[in-house]
Amino acid sequence: MGWSPDGRALRILDQRLLPAQELLLDLVALDDIVSAIRTLAVRGAPAIGVAAAIGLAVTLAAYPGSQARLLLPDMAGRLIASRPTAVNLAWAVQRMCAAATQVADDALLAKLRAEAEAIRVEDVAMCDAIGAHGLSLLPDGVRVLTHCNAGALATAGIGTALAPVHLAHAAGRRVHVYADETRPLRQGGRLTAWELERAGIPVTVLPDGAAASLLKSGAVDLVIVGADRITANGDVANKIGTYGVALAARAHHVPFYVAAPWSTIDAATAHGADICIEYRDRAELGDIPAGASVWNPAFDVTPRELVTGYLTDRGFVDPPFSE
Amino acid sequence: MGWSPDGRALRILDQRLLPAQELLLDLVALDDIVSAIRTLAVRGAPAIGVAAAIGLAVTLAAYPGSQARLLLPDMAGRLIASRPTAVNLAWAVQRMCAAATQVADDALLAKLRAEAEAIRVEDVAMCDAIGAHGLSLLPDGVRVLTHCNAGALATAGIGTALAPVHLAHAAGRRVHVYADETRPLRQGGRLTAWELERAGIPVTVLPDGAAASLLKSGAVDLVIVGADRITANGDVANKIGTYGVALAARAHHVPFYVAAPWSTIDAATAHGADICIEYRDRAELGDIPAGASVWNPAFDVTPRELVTGYLTDRGFVDPPFSE
Repeated sequence: MGWSPDGRALRILDQRLLPAQELLLDLVALDDIVSAIRTLAVRGAPAIGVAAAIGLAVTLAAYPGSQARLLLPDMAGRLIASRPTAVNLAWAVQRMCAAATQVADDALLAKLRAEAEAIRVEDVAMCDAIGAHGLSLLPDGVRVLTHCNAGALATAGIGTALAPVHLAHAAGRRVHVYADETRPLRQGGRLTAWELERAGIPVTVLPDGAAASLLKSGAVDLVIVGADRITANGDVANKIGTYGVALAARAHHVPFYVAAPWSTIDAATAHGADICIEYRDRAELGDIPAGASVWNPAFDVTPRELVTGYLTDRGFVDPPFSE
Repeated sequence: MGWSPDGRALRILDQRLLPAQELLLDLVALDDIVSAIRTLAVRGAPAIGVAAAIGLAVTLAAYPGSQARLLLPDMAGRLIASRPTAVNLAWAVQRMCAAATQVADDALLAKLRAEAEAIRVEDVAMCDAIGAHGLSLLPDGVRVLTHCNAGALATAGIGTALAPVHLAHAAGRRVHVYADETRPLRQGGRLTAWELERAGIPVTVLPDGAAASLLKSGAVDLVIVGADRITANGDVANKIGTYGVALAARAHHVPFYVAAPWSTIDAATAHGADICIEYRDRAELGDIPAGASVWNPAFDVTPRELVTGYLTDRGFVDPPFSE
């Protein structure tokens, strides 16, 4: 995920179609970019932050600087509203807005471009840093359980939760990853499995409901998941299903780590209970009788007391977090 | 599920096609009956016991009594092997074999028919008894979470876990059921939702991974699930995902009940660790990259200490269980 080769578009690999089809999309229109984020063609908290930043730069490039400045606030608002839970999205968009205030109209477009590229490059470096700090968790032969996809597909780099896995594999260590399928959209079965298969890292997919049994069986040395938002007290919003995995890990004394960029920490929000959870459409659950209703939250909150450690690009950190 | 109108076949509603299509199958050949059980066209521990019993009666009706007696052991073995975990299947088949030993060859076919019908009628009565004993759990306005389908579709009657729900609704009490989707085969999203919708009982489907959050939210008054096997010490084998729900229920002080016929209790097996767990095909998980492996157990084991109560056709019972 990043710029198209000519720099005029946001290029994404359409994650709705994986693993069956690998389709690159070059997006310029804001409507298309918002839609890609909302429908999860691009997803993962860090990735949608980078996508929104590049998206703002390419979509505003069609206008003179003075007009771009007038359009920016509304476009920024629409991007932030496209996924309410991930803090990185709002963070990246607000950073673009702040950058715009630093320059005159004639330098605006170049500034937006540079700021988006800076956000992208920092994301790549962030992933590498998380991976390097997390390497100590993964000795040769380690077996890791993860949920959803917090890998390369969720970032502009090598991922957050999977960054240490990629680096350990590159260092010649044997790593086996168990990937929860992650209903309803199957990011584990589709994306994590696809990404790790391509990297040559052994991966086993299991239904979400099987995670507790797997943890009970002793087959897992540690759990690593990503995060969409971490509150000041250390509560973690992440893909629906994470909380149940954390409860089962605790029941079987398996360490449970959260790996995320420092920018995921939302010190302005005190507790997980204050996080706005996104609810998604019933169609995501497939064929359900029309008379049945559906409860489909995109995220859940894992409380601080179930988290063994917080792995960030600044190393391991401990709550409470302040700005 | 039961006899075809002319009594010559096992009639089942093909549960693989629900809720999209309601197709009745009339089966006579043993291969077709074994295949229907193995592929879950008919499923649910009590239902497959009844189906196997009726199946033996109708498939052996093509032979003279003396030949039927010779064929019975092999056919019984094939039926028992079609699903290894549910104790009711072996129980019903062994009961058919025992009945056969009680009569001469010329009375054999009639005896098998009568025994199968007795098993079916007892199953209907068993469901009613579970429902009646369980009614006290469901006051007006109650909210129940269940996993998989332990309803009418899983029995010859009104179900096990859902029997109290059906009776409470019939008694005019308002009951809201939350149904875990139950991956990989979606028995909750497809079957429980279909069955309750038809009965006019409000039902909400959620992804398995959302159950822990739902329990945390306070939206559930109690959990009721079925069982495929209950060991002497009270450990419960049930559809994969049950154990994780039980852990989350415990974490949030929500009562967790197991409802099953007394015949589900396998007093000859001491602990859950001794239960043979069936592993199923990767194809059930849908599109997974070819290089990824799959871990797809059909059942998990919930330990005795997470179970608030055991609801059977004999009322509430407590482990340890003896024969």
